[in-house]
Amino acid sequence: MRLDEDQAQTRLVAHDHGVLCTMHPDRGVDAVPVVYAIDEEGFVGIPVDRVKPKASTRLQRQRNLETDPRATLLIEHWDADDWSRLWWVQVELRAVDDPTTARKDGLATRLAQRYPQYESQPFADILVLGIAGVTGWAAAS
Amino acid sequence: MRLDEDQAQTRLVAHDHGVLCTMHPDRGVDAVPVVYAIDEEGFVGIPVDRVKPKASTRLQRQRNLETDPRATLLIEHWDADDWSRLWWVQVELRAVDDPTTARKDGLATRLAQRYPQYESQPFADILVLGIAGVTGWAAAS
Repeated sequence: MRLDEDQAQTRLVAHDHGVLCTMHPDRGVDAVPVVYAIDEEGFVGIPVDRVKPKASTRLQRQRNLETDPRATLLIEHWDADDWSRLWWVQVELRAVDDPTTARKDGLATRLAQRYPQYESQPFADILVLGIAGVTGWAAAS
Repeated sequence: MRLDEDQAQTRLVAHDHGVLCTMHPDRGVDAVPVVYAIDEEGFVGIPVDRVKPKASTRLQRQRNLETDPRATLLIEHWDADDWSRLWWVQVELRAVDDPTTARKDGLATRLAQRYPQYESQPFADILVLGIAGVTGWAAAS
C-alpha cells in the first residue's frame, strides 16, 4: 500500500540511513550509502565524512550536485524472510547552493547526537538539501 | 578501501537485494528496492513482481529504461553500531532491449530458487540488464 506524505515523512525522520542518488554527467546515476539528519524546517544534512575512509571518488556526489542539484534518497526496511514487513520511502531532494552557517551548525549537532561514531572523528563537511517530495510504500500498514 | 572488480563481483553474486536507480525523464532519479539474480554470462535479472503489491507507478522503472537504458544497482551492508563492517558495491547496468526467452527463463529459474516467496506467487515479468562496470568499497578487507 502507498504511504501518505505524513507516514512517509515519519519513517524518514525515524530511520538512520539510506542510499543517496545523484546524476553523473556522463555515466548516469551515482548511488552511495549515507547517513543523515533532518532539522525542524525539514532540511536534510548528509555528512561528507572521514570516519569511513573513502577512495578517490569520495567527493563525486558533490561535483554531481554542482552540475545537477537533483538528488534522490531511498530509505527502506529489508527482511529476507518476511516480505510482509517490507517498506520504502523515496525522497526527492534539491541541493541547497549556499546554506547558512546556522543551518549547517544545526545539522552538524543533530548528526553528532545521532551517530556517536562522529564523536571521535568529525565529518569533513555537510551536504544540505531541501525536500521537494516524499513518497513511500509498505507491504502492510 | 576500494574493492577490486573480483571482490566487488563476489559480493554482488552473494548478496540478496539492493536499490535499483533509473532515470525519470523529468524528475531525476527513481530509486526502488529490488531483489535480483545473475546468470553464468553475467546478466542481471530483476523481477517485476506481484508478491509485494505495488502502487500505480509500479512499472515506472520499465518506462524509464525504455527512454534511458542506463541503470545503477547499489548493494550494501549496513551496521548501525559497527562501521568497520560497512561495505557497498555499485553496479553500472544497461537494459537489454529484447532478451531471449532462454535468458529470461534461466533467470526466472534462478530467482525462483533464490526467493521462496515466488513459489506461491510468481513474478509478472523480468527486467534483463547487462553489467557495464562494478566498483565497491569496504571499511575493512
